[in-house]
Amino acid sequence: MSSTNRRVTLAQRPVGAVSADCFAVDEVDVAEIGPGEVLVEVQWLSVDPTIRGWMATDTYLPAIEIGAPIRSGGLGSVIESNNDSLPVGSTVFGMTGWQQYAVLDGSGTQVVPEGIEPQAALSVFGVTGITAYFGLLDVGEPKEGDTVLVSGAAGATGSVAGQIARIKGCRVVGIAGSAEKCAWLTDELGFDAAVNYRTDDVSAAIRAACPDGVDVFFDNVGGDILEAGLANLALRGRVVLCGAIATYNDTELRPGPNNLTQLIVQRGRMEGFIVLDYMGRAGEAIGDLATWVLGGELKYAVDVVDGLDHAPDALDRLFTGANHGKVMVRL
Amino acid sequence: MSSTNRRVTLAQRPVGAVSADCFAVDEVDVAEIGPGEVLVEVQWLSVDPTIRGWMATDTYLPAIEIGAPIRSGGLGSVIESNNDSLPVGSTVFGMTGWQQYAVLDGSGTQVVPEGIEPQAALSVFGVTGITAYFGLLDVGEPKEGDTVLVSGAAGATGSVAGQIARIKGCRVVGIAGSAEKCAWLTDELGFDAAVNYRTDDVSAAIRAACPDGVDVFFDNVGGDILEAGLANLALRGRVVLCGAIATYNDTELRPGPNNLTQLIVQRGRMEGFIVLDYMGRAGEAIGDLATWVLGGELKYAVDVVDGLDHAPDALDRLFTGANHGKVMVRL
Repeated sequence: MSSTNRRVTLAQRPVGAVSADCFAVDEVDVAEIGPGEVLVEVQWLSVDPTIRGWMATDTYLPAIEIGAPIRSGGLGSVIESNNDSLPVGSTVFGMTGWQQYAVLDGSGTQVVPEGIEPQAALSVFGVTGITAYFGLLDVGEPKEGDTVLVSGAAGATGSVAGQIARIKGCRVVGIAGSAEKCAWLTDELGFDAAVNYRTDDVSAAIRAACPDGVDVFFDNVGGDILEAGLANLALRGRVVLCGAIATYNDTELRPGPNNLTQLIVQRGRMEGFIVLDYMGRAGEAIGDLATWVLGGELKYAVDVVDGLDHAPDALDRLFTGANHGKVMVRL
Repeated sequence: MSSTNRRVTLAQRPVGAVSADCFAVDEVDVAEIGPGEVLVEVQWLSVDPTIRGWMATDTYLPAIEIGAPIRSGGLGSVIESNNDSLPVGSTVFGMTGWQQYAVLDGSGTQVVPEGIEPQAALSVFGVTGITAYFGLLDVGEPKEGDTVLVSGAAGATGSVAGQIARIKGCRVVGIAGSAEKCAWLTDELGFDAAVNYRTDDVSAAIRAACPDGVDVFFDNVGGDILEAGLANLALRGRVVLCGAIATYNDTELRPGPNNLTQLIVQRGRMEGFIVLDYMGRAGEAIGDLATWVLGGELKYAVDVVDGLDHAPDALDRLFTGANHGKVMVRL
């Protein structure tokens, strides 16, 4: 191993879109591990929209400190260990941050079972899959025969959420940003219909695809897309607020949807969640997800960017919509 | 009885605030009753914000037809009956509309028990009280010790909802539009604090009154008030959308709150409801409400306007905030 640890750190907080000058690269000595800790050689990084929030301000977690490595999940090999449950040689997932070597302790760090590829561990069997699973099933409560609408449907979480809805016997409609993504949803993932938000009148297209209204709207996007989904809510429809990527780069708070009274007229419910609250039940999700993946019912796509120094570019792909599936960085 | 039936009818649909030219007064022959029907001499009318919606457009009920009497609940005496469960001489509540004589059938028409004054039957023991009861308890799910925020707190529904929360052991904060109303909430109804939305910085005042955040927000108002409540939502807070009187006169859809992501960060829930869905369980509500009223724990205020021809003025009082408690018309 190297004696230096290359890191991508927070140079300044983003105002609007995340730009290159938000980041710095440095090299520091590899840290010594203390009691209960392990040293991990990081091999893969999970790149998620919530990182932008952590860079900007306190949210459900404190903001990343200036000069600290960008907070993120990551996967790597344990190369030194003071923790019997995380032995040397094991592959682990934890909050590594954007750096070559991370010191982790046992809290929130999990051994990745042998036979699970890193790309799967970081996506469908990782936070992404767990988010889709509990957000759709626990918060959205779809019933067989329901119509489920998913925005950001070609993204990591949306593509899994939509397929889970299909597996549960729902009619599934996805919203995505290109004809190619829409074709992938219907042709490869088994969505019943797809709406291209860049070319379609979104509300009218949802109405055409969901003539009986939307029973569950799994929303990753917020903004105008949320408004269009609300406009088509069925009686007692549920809106799952998973994320609002359309708004994360806003420099001022953006007005919300103009049709919240739909929630009154339709007796609807809108509810947010954070996957961290469900990590104690992760096994439930992973058991079902593994069954579906191994049975060929659930597909996942990954969008791999190579090189630690390109992690900022990987984050950018989420906000431009360039990605197709789960964005991750291979070191 | 008279052979003519004086009515206040819908002359044109409102655009913006309801104006006098939305209404017409006419006199028609008193209708004949058919099988199962009764003729009611109307004595009191219930005046509710939702009437403005019925005048304007299809909502959860079809819009009122032009030329038809304004739809509303009302109370009166049965003077002719073809229905054994609604005998001549009984006092009944039903959808009488704004007119002197109404033909009702058994669906949705209820006999008012003897000993219940019309003012109570139309407010705390009527749709108003039932709305407050199920909206707060079933949708808001307050727990003892929760902080409950109520907007439109000096109105018919809000004042009852806030008192139910107090009875259930919650800390209760009301939002109202005058110092006198605020004093009534705290001094007479037992609210813990009150915010005057006309003079206070609403969000800051809520924060001061609810230092641990708002567990349940019972919102009758919408607009900026909804945004201020959301800004102060506690972890797993619930927003009950009972109404949005601030927005009912809008001529264009008004943007919603700019902080819906609070629902994600705080794992919050926002849910709308319509009291009609609870009418089958009205007995539960009325039993508890009667116990509390008779025990002196629950007070109600009525705001009486005299004369059928002044019903439009009564409706106006709701939108200017001139009312103090339940608005009703005495014929």
